[in-house]
Amino acid sequence: MDVYEAIKNRKSIRKYKSTPIPEEKLKKILGAMRLAPSAKNLQPWKFVIVRDEEIKRKLIPACNNQKFIAEAPIIIAGCAFEDECYTYMGGYTSSYPVDLGIAFDHLMLAATSEGLGTCWIGSFKEEKVKEVLGIPKNVRVVGLTPVGFPDESPEAKPRKNLSEIVCYDKYE
Amino acid sequence: MDVYEAIKNRKSIRKYKSTPIPEEKLKKILGAMRLAPSAKNLQPWKFVIVRDEEIKRKLIPACNNQKFIAEAPIIIAGCAFEDECYTYMGGYTSSYPVDLGIAFDHLMLAATSEGLGTCWIGSFKEEKVKEVLGIPKNVRVVGLTPVGFPDESPEAKPRKNLSEIVCYDKYE
Repeated sequence: MDVYEAIKNRKSIRKYKSTPIPEEKLKKILGAMRLAPSAKNLQPWKFVIVRDEEIKRKLIPACNNQKFIAEAPIIIAGCAFEDECYTYMGGYTSSYPVDLGIAFDHLMLAATSEGLGTCWIGSFKEEKVKEVLGIPKNVRVVGLTPVGFPDESPEAKPRKNLSEIVCYDKYE
Repeated sequence: MDVYEAIKNRKSIRKYKSTPIPEEKLKKILGAMRLAPSAKNLQPWKFVIVRDEEIKRKLIPACNNQKFIAEAPIIIAGCAFEDECYTYMGGYTSSYPVDLGIAFDHLMLAATSEGLGTCWIGSFKEEKVKEVLGIPKNVRVVGLTPVGFPDESPEAKPRKNLSEIVCYDKYE
């Protein structure tokens, strides 16, 4: 699928079919994620692919009761090594949220091109997700996403006009 | 360009031709960036497109003397509204670095498909960039990128094996 088409077609999918994800599709989208750039190419990340039904169900309360996530055959948790990322981005912050954002974006655009749906989950309780998945103390959870065949076709969400988000040469 | 091809072909470009960017190409890549998802669709961002030669030159010391950035006809600074983003991501952090990461990733994949090069700049001094571009106190700078036609064709950087970055059901 053309990159612009993938960008345009990617939507937050909150209703999934139970159809399993063919292994070769999963490999392709994980491969796209793997190629993501990261600050200093440190790749400070690990991804937990949750397929077990009971563990998926346990993630529901950890994700503030978003029940739809467990409908999907897979939930992926994006984890970051805070101690292994670039810690001086802009001179003030750690790169890992940006790194993970890019990796998940790669995954989601590739998923769209495979006919699969995803949904960035930012509303979760990190401590609870870590407890369910056995994630060590020094590893952060940046986001989660279900992955599966969409069972809905939501309208595109509105976006600000380009003139509102872009300015030239000086901040305006 | 196919989304996988764009993902594979995107490289950090550190040598640019001075050839100007055709206006329609710039519009297309900014349009792709505009469509990026953000937490709660808040779109807490603004992008400063720097074309002025003198301002570009002033950005060099602000970006820790990375001279190549000013070779490109355009430098884009990705700015975020910390006060207007989702502040409870994972129950512990603000969404704006992830939001900006996704928007810049959209931009960079679209740029690749237009034959344009980019390079995530994470090594910069936020305060100096803000001074050069007149960015207000309560606005953060998350990253910058030059945009232009590549004058080099670097090898792909190595990536960790998939088996190293992926695990199943439980963190391992």
